Amino acid sequence: MVRWEPDAAGRLRRAALELFAERGVEATTVAAIAERAGVTERTFFRYFRDKREVLFGDQEGFAGLFVEGVRAAAPDAAPLEAVAAGLRSASDFFTDDARDGARLRSTVIDAHPGLRERELLKMADVGDRMAAALRERGVAEPGASLAAKSGIAVFHAAFAAWVAPGQTRGLADLTEDGLRELRAIAR
Amino acid sequence: MVRWEPDAAGRLRRAALELFAERGVEATTVAAIAERAGVTERTFFRYFRDKREVLFGDQEGFAGLFVEGVRAAAPDAAPLEAVAAGLRSASDFFTDDARDGARLRSTVIDAHPGLRERELLKMADVGDRMAAALRERGVAEPGASLAAKSGIAVFHAAFAAWVAPGQTRGLADLTEDGLRELRAIAR
Repeated sequence: MVRWEPDAAGRLRRAALELFAERGVEATTVAAIAERAGVTERTFFRYFRDKREVLFGDQEGFAGLFVEGVRAAAPDAAPLEAVAAGLRSASDFFTDDARDGARLRSTVIDAHPGLRERELLKMADVGDRMAAALRERGVAEPGASLAAKSGIAVFHAAFAAWVAPGQTRGLADLTEDGLRELRAIAR
Repeated sequence: MVRWEPDAAGRLRRAALELFAERGVEATTVAAIAERAGVTERTFFRYFRDKREVLFGDQEGFAGLFVEGVRAAAPDAAPLEAVAAGLRSASDFFTDDARDGARLRSTVIDAHPGLRERELLKMADVGDRMAAALRERGVAEPGASLAAKSGIAVFHAAFAAWVAPGQTRGLADLTEDGLRELRAIAR
């Protein structure tokens, strides 16, 4: 096992992703995850409520990256500029040393329709929260939702490109490309 | 009961929506739907596999409206123009005499998180199919997905406005507004 993170939570996350990729999520037990990570089951439950939380844990923290970015944008920033600030805030969080883990996670999720749905709902929730943050800034509907949802489409595409085999460019870079592409398309 | 469609399928749909709105989806039986529509249960099952199909039936036909519109767009139309043609094709299908039924359906769906998720997945599927139709036209990724998903955001917002209380403007009109708004936001 490659110990790409020194802490127990990181080892557990890596072990779970490897086992999910090898055996599928259903066939993987918490006992097997703990064993591969070299910790007890009790330690697993100190970090995660259940095995799926390894894939979808901390939705609040994840969505918060986007929302804080929107809130921190210049007061006179246009709606899509504020959304871009949200995407940048999230992109900066996913540094290149997180790419291998994200790649493995994407492989697992893409292989399970139920997990892909949950991922879709998770991103839709982030979009709803960014739209709410835009309305707090005085952006009216439907503009707020359109800007937020278009931004989510950009992030989704950039993330898929970031974890694609052989990709070496950073997520922040790919996100900027996507924002440029969105502007070009809507022109 | 207002018989706003003369056929049995239409009466069953209306009866089901009324009962879902009154009692919730779980508490509504096929027997009760058939009784209110004045037909037998056997007739219900001639038109629908189960009670949820009244809300989400014919995804192929629904998605087809969008995809055919994209395919029928002028060969030199820009990606968002082709998506706009898809949205127009779908909007034209929802004429004003379908609004009361759509309003009742939205009320039922908005009250159930599980149904809202299914609606979200249904729209995501339409987006994926429009993106595929754009790729057939030679549009590269991520442009195809961004244009299709932004278009779905426009349609979603326009549909919500169309079924809002007191709204008298047509869906096609509201969709054009949304497309203009999207262009303004991305400028």
